[in-house]
Amino acid sequence: MARKVCLIGSGNWGSAIARIIGDNAAHNPKFDSQVNMWVFEEQVNGRNLTEIINTEHENVKYLPGYKLPENVVAIPDLIEAVKGADILIFCVPHQFLGAMLPRIKSQGLTSSAIAVSLIKGIDFNEHGIVLISNMIRDTLNIDCSVLMGANVANEVAAGDFCESTLGCSDLCHGALLKELFNARTFRVDVVLDPHGVELCGAIKNIVALGAGFCDGLGYGGNTKAAVIRIGLMEMKHFCFKFFDGIKEDTFFQSCGIADLITTCFGGRNRKCAEAFVRQQPITWEKLEQEILNGQKLQGTLAAQEVYQILQKHACADQFPLFTKIYLIAFQHADPTLISQF
Amino acid sequence: MARKVCLIGSGNWGSAIARIIGDNAAHNPKFDSQVNMWVFEEQVNGRNLTEIINTEHENVKYLPGYKLPENVVAIPDLIEAVKGADILIFCVPHQFLGAMLPRIKSQGLTSSAIAVSLIKGIDFNEHGIVLISNMIRDTLNIDCSVLMGANVANEVAAGDFCESTLGCSDLCHGALLKELFNARTFRVDVVLDPHGVELCGAIKNIVALGAGFCDGLGYGGNTKAAVIRIGLMEMKHFCFKFFDGIKEDTFFQSCGIADLITTCFGGRNRKCAEAFVRQQPITWEKLEQEILNGQKLQGTLAAQEVYQILQKHACADQFPLFTKIYLIAFQHADPTLISQF
Repeated sequence: MARKVCLIGSGNWGSAIARIIGDNAAHNPKFDSQVNMWVFEEQVNGRNLTEIINTEHENVKYLPGYKLPENVVAIPDLIEAVKGADILIFCVPHQFLGAMLPRIKSQGLTSSAIAVSLIKGIDFNEHGIVLISNMIRDTLNIDCSVLMGANVANEVAAGDFCESTLGCSDLCHGALLKELFNARTFRVDVVLDPHGVELCGAIKNIVALGAGFCDGLGYGGNTKAAVIRIGLMEMKHFCFKFFDGIKEDTFFQSCGIADLITTCFGGRNRKCAEAFVRQQPITWEKLEQEILNGQKLQGTLAAQEVYQILQKHACADQFPLFTKIYLIAFQHADPTLISQF
Repeated sequence: MARKVCLIGSGNWGSAIARIIGDNAAHNPKFDSQVNMWVFEEQVNGRNLTEIINTEHENVKYLPGYKLPENVVAIPDLIEAVKGADILIFCVPHQFLGAMLPRIKSQGLTSSAIAVSLIKGIDFNEHGIVLISNMIRDTLNIDCSVLMGANVANEVAAGDFCESTLGCSDLCHGALLKELFNARTFRVDVVLDPHGVELCGAIKNIVALGAGFCDGLGYGGNTKAAVIRIGLMEMKHFCFKFFDGIKEDTFFQSCGIADLITTCFGGRNRKCAEAFVRQQPITWEKLEQEILNGQKLQGTLAAQEVYQILQKHACADQFPLFTKIYLIAFQHADPTLISQF
């Protein structure tokens, strides 16, 4: 049976990954060659974005300069896009999911449907962390894997070699999804640890703030490497403390150290944190306006929420780096606190 | 009993660490407050370097601008320096050891004597790798720990915060040595894995060549992070394959990922490897002249020797990154091979 694939999302990362899964679906009989891509409809130079994508095979707004395979079909209606899909790939801002998931559920899913989340982020409610994959899993009542790694979208689109980590709880699903995502320049490793993979993708951004503070203070390589290492240890400790079934090896995967490295040397969280130190006093909101054109940072949100969880469980002392980062970012602590252990 | 400490070596790193152990020895009754430092005698502006160190308390040649504690006493005669020492700290180019160790042994060692090596490097003979710590251990017939980490000497001297890993096979020795080396801005963690710690310090330089090739080719963060991650995996695999008692956790320590990060973003091996790609065709000897003022790279030596070991054991296919690095560096392979997996 050829599985129908639907990619929900068409931003920078969604469009980059569409190039890979479009190619793979076209050449692998396990997949229906048409890949539906749900596109949030908008006007570009007076034309519908879906129309541009379906005629020029390029997402001129979010991934200009790179062609999409012709078997990737842009569809503006969510229900139409997901109809009959066996594999749902989520690649939208997680704030969209609350409204989207019930609509997808209401139209009915195939009995073999599975999902995979490419969303790097976490949500929080009154009980603590809400994993995006669990939100999908629980609302749609289907299995949900995750794909995370050191995958800057434009570099993936350019065909630069990189790796990615597929975290799954069902190896058969993992094997199938690997066939959909793996490519010569996009090497996918499968690990049986969906929560560990997803958490890495979300909380690494806290560490990136710490790395940015080091850069803003003009610290050398020793100190920054120490902050990154301690950050990785606290990421591990946090995952093991608050989740079951986490595997240590996950932190050695692309979703772990590799993504942490790119995030702490490139990346918007690092960049804004450097500016936060250099331009003190300044607010995060102002930096988001100046540097990110109004987009929101993931790291500052995660730093606040994680600190609340640590407070609630009275264990902030076990996470000195996360705590310092929170205090510098939100409690006016002296940034040099970052290197005082 | 107050242990007498002798630091053998007074280069950039030796002088930086002398500041820490001098301070610790002066304030901890477990150590004799006088720390002997063997100094290779040379003339600086017509004066003996030992005389300058002992009067001005500064190694003006190798660590200018930083004072040494007054209880660190420079001694040009090796036998006199090590006489009665309970703790021997080795911090010299490993090529010196062949001549030094028999001399030290001949003068007799105290029954409680232990050693610690700060030498980042490995040697090779017809049987394969020779660990520096084993050379010390076997020749002097005393226990030898190692201290390695993301520790650029001038940053340590400046008091920038960093971490370091003490690898020991005897926890009592580890605990004592931690008291000698640990400081507020130099945080020492002890692990029961001396060989793993030492191997990390030596073979990370091979990975740094790969990182430098990426930089020379203008690759982005995804690819470089992937190369660093794969390099760390091959470091682990190499250690587990050829040595007993290696601990996975060692690779999470400062001697592992932290040192690898600093080496792959700063560091002379990375720098020369970048130039090697940009200035092709060029020899390593010429780059060592141009960039390092004639000093030898550790990474190129290690890459060759490790490749020979892989060939001898017919397992180069299990180490694709190490193999590619060797082929690019020494067999005229196209540098873009680095990202072809």
